[in-house]
This record gives sequence, structure tokens and C-alpha cells, in this order.
Amino acid sequence: MACCHYYGHTAGGDTAFAVDMSAITYGAGCLAEAGDHARSLGMHRVALFTDASLAALEPVAVVKQSLLAAGLDVVVYDRVKVEPTDGSFLSAARFASEGKFDGFVSVGGGSVIDTCKAANLYSTYPAEFIDYVNAPIGNARAVPGPLKPHIACPTTSGTGSECTGIAIFDFVERRVKTGIVSKRLRPSLALIDPTTTYSLPANVVAASGFDVLSHALESFTALPYTRRAPADRPSLRPMSQGANPWSDLGCEKALQMTGLYLERAVRDASDHEARDGMMFAATLAGIAFGNAGVHLPHGMSYAVAGQVKNFCPHGYPQDEPMVPHGMSVIVNAPAVFRFTADACPERHLDAARWLGADVAGATNADAGEIVAERLIALMQSTGIPNGVGGVGYVPADVDSLAAGAWAQQRLIKNAPKPVTENDLAGLFHGAMKYW
Amino acid sequence: MACCHYYGHTAGGDTAFAVDMSAITYGAGCLAEAGDHARSLGMHRVALFTDASLAALEPVAVVKQSLLAAGLDVVVYDRVKVEPTDGSFLSAARFASEGKFDGFVSVGGGSVIDTCKAANLYSTYPAEFIDYVNAPIGNARAVPGPLKPHIACPTTSGTGSECTGIAIFDFVERRVKTGIVSKRLRPSLALIDPTTTYSLPANVVAASGFDVLSHALESFTALPYTRRAPADRPSLRPMSQGANPWSDLGCEKALQMTGLYLERAVRDASDHEARDGMMFAATLAGIAFGNAGVHLPHGMSYAVAGQVKNFCPHGYPQDEPMVPHGMSVIVNAPAVFRFTADACPERHLDAARWLGADVAGATNADAGEIVAERLIALMQSTGIPNGVGGVGYVPADVDSLAAGAWAQQRLIKNAPKPVTENDLAGLFHGAMKYW
Repeated sequence: MACCHYYGHTAGGDTAFAVDMSAITYGAGCLAEAGDHARSLGMHRVALFTDASLAALEPVAVVKQSLLAAGLDVVVYDRVKVEPTDGSFLSAARFASEGKFDGFVSVGGGSVIDTCKAANLYSTYPAEFIDYVNAPIGNARAVPGPLKPHIACPTTSGTGSECTGIAIFDFVERRVKTGIVSKRLRPSLALIDPTTTYSLPANVVAASGFDVLSHALESFTALPYTRRAPADRPSLRPMSQGANPWSDLGCEKALQMTGLYLERAVRDASDHEARDGMMFAATLAGIAFGNAGVHLPHGMSYAVAGQVKNFCPHGYPQDEPMVPHGMSVIVNAPAVFRFTADACPERHLDAARWLGADVAGATNADAGEIVAERLIALMQSTGIPNGVGGVGYVPADVDSLAAGAWAQQRLIKNAPKPVTENDLAGLFHGAMKYW
Repeated sequence: MACCHYYGHTAGGDTAFAVDMSAITYGAGCLAEAGDHARSLGMHRVALFTDASLAALEPVAVVKQSLLAAGLDVVVYDRVKVEPTDGSFLSAARFASEGKFDGFVSVGGGSVIDTCKAANLYSTYPAEFIDYVNAPIGNARAVPGPLKPHIACPTTSGTGSECTGIAIFDFVERRVKTGIVSKRLRPSLALIDPTTTYSLPANVVAASGFDVLSHALESFTALPYTRRAPADRPSLRPMSQGANPWSDLGCEKALQMTGLYLERAVRDASDHEARDGMMFAATLAGIAFGNAGVHLPHGMSYAVAGQVKNFCPHGYPQDEPMVPHGMSVIVNAPAVFRFTADACPERHLDAARWLGADVAGATNADAGEIVAERLIALMQSTGIPNGVGGVGYVPADVDSLAAGAWAQQRLIKNAPKPVTENDLAGLFHGAMKYW
């Protein structure tokens, strides 16, 4: 492989990488297969998770009808909170415990799928909420055994949650986003139907599309697995294991497709080729980051979203302020890649080229600026806010944002170079305004 | 995706594709992780499968030591037959039944891993041998439930068996190779250590390397999944589902790496970059063909190997005639791709380019010849026999070979265009001698 020298043995570093993923079924109309797959996974009584705005829409109706036609009992839970919290996770877990289900199906974006993972976990292996939450915020207790079968049906081309063992939430009292991470959380099956995205509003496609882009770009530029210290035992090798030759493949294709389709998919809902392309890119990026891990833009995003002031974007619930996940990620990204480029400039240039930048004659010293400029151009043409300032922050917020991001050690440590809390403050300053 | 039109909806065709694979751990030295992974998979008493020539070598010693160090009981079974038969599968199954194991580990090439799959199956869910064998030769009975955990450790860069749910054997009384196919046969974990290939003889690297090449080339040119009739139920979608955008990714990379590394890996055992590259290519091609399926070169190979006369290649057991699997595949390939090129010429040209052919100025009409010429050049430079004639057949054998291949309907139907038994005879005539 062209990249083999990049993964040469490093003293004190890990010597192998792991690959694992959910089973996937991908294709137009495949949500109608849910019932047959649920039955083949041994489900009889199913908790069907969604959110209030999706509950009345076609994807949920199709899945529910399919489950009923397969002879399954179905109880719908539509109280998932978009950008879930510890409280909304716990409410969902209570529902799951009381319902005595033997299977779970989720239909929605990352919020729905993540909530379903948490409900499956806490109803199958009850514990104090803090127990399974990532360290250092929580106790990072290992999930004791396999969860009940879960079929995840994404309706946005973004989170990749259907492919990962990660569930993210707002920890309200701590004012920070964090998550629960375990291979056991991976859905048993992802049913990915690109036609579910045809009716999404443009700015939802934009925000979720930048989540895809950043999954791929962060995984591709993450610390190589050969430079991460080995886990205590090989079977505990983390999912955020760093860049590796397997995840590189998915990143490359996802970045190429994002470069080709993101702007088209945002601009024109009837451009089905572009929306299909973004859904497949989301799948590939989800598989990649599920086996490599993201780093600074995501680590910083949890502070940007968790400390939201009064930002209320179109196309999302208006009952309270929120920064949609993909938006909270990409507003950090140009500043981050200017900072990380010197750690692996060739990778930054490759990524820029795949995203459509002209890299003719560029040197390694140009890499950070070229990636940043390409990201900024894509942000401008798709209506993304102008940096962290564009979603409501001012320079006086930087210390608090940096402290919030600093808590995301799982992600900070996956960056391609060492990062201090001061560096994070500098990155937030650099991310305040891009144009 | 560039290929999206290739997968446009076709009347009467399937509308979705499935992706599934074994968990993988990949890296130099990772065989020493076997014990920890076995314990984490719940094993206590392990059947360790290998063959007589491997039993005394380092990979088996490393795995056995790791299992013992993890506190597991280990019983070695080293009577795997290279190119296994119904009889050798049954002997292995008897060993597995009598040993009361709760887990399996296999260390070897495809023969060892396939035999271990069969032993796991028949000892876990006893049945008449013919029951689980592919139709139309066998009864194609569904595997009733999950098998016991199986860690597969390949020692050749070839079969990809560690990633697939396929076990192939010689059905001696029928004089044909066939197999058992079920997702349940997929190993729980593949431990892939490229250093195991450093001591392989050149012609084993060549034969297994052409198996890799053909997995990728056949999967890439297989009938698109959109042109295969749907299964009776979506959960029964076959692993040989045809070409799809997911498997295309692995095929592309595997072909590029094979073009770059096959000749180097054969020529020089100390070229570790090349041998590592072929091992990763084997993994990618294994994942790809496990989700797409091979077609004519493999279908024909089962007749070529099953009807062997007196061919005894160097580097393999000399006690009876045999055509090594990869060799039995690639001797058919140039004739096949001359025949299939008109079904999807762009794909044949792409593949030829990835394999290193000069395609400048080539038209679709040239595609078959360009692929064939490139394959022939690679065969010549790596010491592969000159076609089907080179492994001992004469034109008078063609009808019998065609009849043997015709029985492989699972593979014949995965070709990109319709194939008759007469076509197969023509292909064997065309494959008799290339230079």
C-alpha cells in the first residue's frame, strides 16, 4: 500500500489494528425489509424508536407496517429528544425496561439511533447512569454482555451512528456533550435507504453532510494506530484506535463523494444522484470512523453544542436553542486543520484534492491553508454559519469552550499531534470567524 | 459514486445489497493475541486446527502458546488435508464432536480454515453430510443457528477464507469441488499476521496471489446485484449477491495492490513490503468476494482441481496429484475475461489499468484482450502453468471439465452474462494454452 511507511512500527506503539462493523443492508426501499430482518434476528416484541417530527412521516410508517406484517408486536416511542440529554436517555431507558421488549428498531437521525442504543443498554444491563459514560466524565464501565438485537434505520446522511458503537448526549448539569462507547452498542443491522433523505430541508443536508465530511477527514488525519500505546489487553483495543489502512479506504472514497455531491445535494432536493451519493458517503465514513475515531473538530464540537446560547437554526426544532451536530463540528474544522497539517501534510493535501481543491504546485507548507480554504468555500456555498462566532459565541467564551473540549480526552488524544488546553483556546480563537 | 448508473434499478432485479464480514485484527505479530481474544469470546476448551506440515512451524507454536498462556485447554488437530475432501471434513467433524470443545482456532491456508468451519458446523448441528452442501449437488439446508466461536489465522495471502462464510471441498465420488455456504460459517474473528507469509515458497505465493487477484477481478465483474432476482425473503439475500458499490471499493484497492506487489512478492521472499501488501490485498479481496461472489474462473476451477490427473506442483504435498486452488482458478481467467468483457467493458478496462496494463487509447472492444494479455504476462513472470493444458489436461477432457463446471450453478449464475454448458466448453478450449 502506498501508505505502508506511514504505518511503520513505532517504539511503544500498537502493532495491529482491529476492524469491526454492523451488518448493513443498503438500497432504495429497504426500510420495507425491516420486519423480515427483525424476525430473523429473533425479535417478537419490538420497541420502535423515533422522534416527534418523524413519527408521522413515511419512513416510520413503512418500518412499522413491515414489522406488523411480519407478525411482531410493536410499541412506538416517539419522545426522543433531538440532541439527546442524560435525562432523555434515562426516560427512554425507563420505557424500554417497562416494555419487556426483545428487540429494538430505530428510525431517525443520530439522536434517535443513539437514544435507542442507550435504552437497549440500560434496560438490558441496569446500572447507575454515570457507570457506562466515558471517562473521565463517567466511570467507563464495560458493557457486561451482548445487547438485544437492534436494527438502525438512518433518515439523515450524516451521523453514521448506524455503523458505530457510540451514543452521544448532552450531560446537562456538566454543560458538556459526551458519550457511551462500546462495541456492544453497535446495531445488529443497519437498514440504509437513501430515499429517506429526499425530503430533508437543505440546511439539514448541509449540517449532516459536513458531519460526514469531518468523520472522513478526522479519521484520515487521526494519530496513526502505530503511535497509540497498546491497550492493556488486545481484546480491549479501542474503537478510536487511530488511522489505519482499512479506515483510510473508506475515508478516501467518502471525501471524494463529498467533494462531488455535498453542494449539489444541498442545492437541489431533486438531485437524487447527489443525495444518494451523500448517503453512501455517510455509510463509508461511518464505517471508517467507527474503526479509527475522530479527533479535534468533534472534541471541540461537544463544547460548542453543550454551551449553546441562543442559536436556533431553520429546519430544526425551535423550542430551545441548539447547534446541530454537523454544524457544531465544521465551524471548528478550518482552524483545526491549519493546526494539524504539519503533523501529516501529505494527508491534508490528499484530502484537499479529494474534496475538489486545486493542489497543483502545492508544498507541504501549504497543506493546512489549502484544506482550510476548501472547507471554508464549501461552508459558504452551503449556508453554514461563519465559524464559532456564527453560532453565537464571542471571544470571551473561549476559555469555557476550551475547558469543555479539554474534557473530551478520548478524542483529543486521537489528534495527530499533542494538544494542550491552551492550544484548544487558540483553536477556538482561530475558529471565531473565517470570512 | 462514479458507478451509480451501473447500479440503476432493473425490472425484476434486487433493490438492495447486504454487507457483512468477520471482525478482523490485522498486524505483524498479532497471532500472539490469540489467547486473549479466545478468552474474550468465551472459549475454555479449544480445538486448534492445522495441517501436518504447518504443525511444527512457528505460527502454530505462537498461537498454541498464546492459548495456553491464557489458561485455555488446547487440543491440536493436524490431520487437515490440503485441498480437503468430504472424507477429510467428516474426520475433522468427528474429532470436533468427540472433543467437546467450546471454541475453535484455525492456523493455516484455506484448507485448514475451511475444514475448521465444517468441523464446527457438523459438531454443533449434526446432520447427514449432504444436508448442508450447496444445491444442486447437496440439499443446501440452512444452518440452524450460531456456531461456536472460531478464530481464523491465515498463513497464506490468498483464500480470504478468514473473511467468508464458505467452506470448499472435493466431493470425491462426484469428482467435483463444491462447498457449504452460510453466513453462520464466518469466523468470529480473523487474526491476520502478514509475517506468516515471509517463509512461503515462491510458487505458493504465486498461486495464492492469483487467487486474490481473481477474487477481486471476478467480484468486480460479477453480475450487478440489481440484475439478480431478489431472494424469497430479504434476510435470505445470498452472499454471492453480485457486484455492488461496497465490494467495488475493496476490489479496486486489491487489484491495485496485486498489480504493484504480486510479482515482487513471488520474486523475493525478503521483500516484506510486497508480501505485506499481498496479505492486505488478500484481506480486502476476501471481504469483497464475501459480499459479491466470484463467477466463472472459480466455477471452472472446481472442475480443474476435482478432475486432476497427474499434476504435482513444487511446494505442495507430493503424496498425490493436485492443482493448487489459485492455480486452478487463474488458468481459466484469460479465456473467461475475453468472453465476459462485452458485458461490462469499462470495468474490464479499469481492472486492467489497476493491474498495471497500459490502456491509453483503448476502446471497449479492446477490453477483453487487454485484461487477458495482462493476466498472461503476470502468469508468465511468476511461473504459473500455461493454461489448463499446463496442469495436465488435453482437448479431449473439455466435455468432462465443462460438465463439472456446469454443476457450479451458484457461481455460473453470478457471471455478468448468461452462460451455457457449451460456452463453458468453449472457454476450456480457449484456456488450454496461452503462449
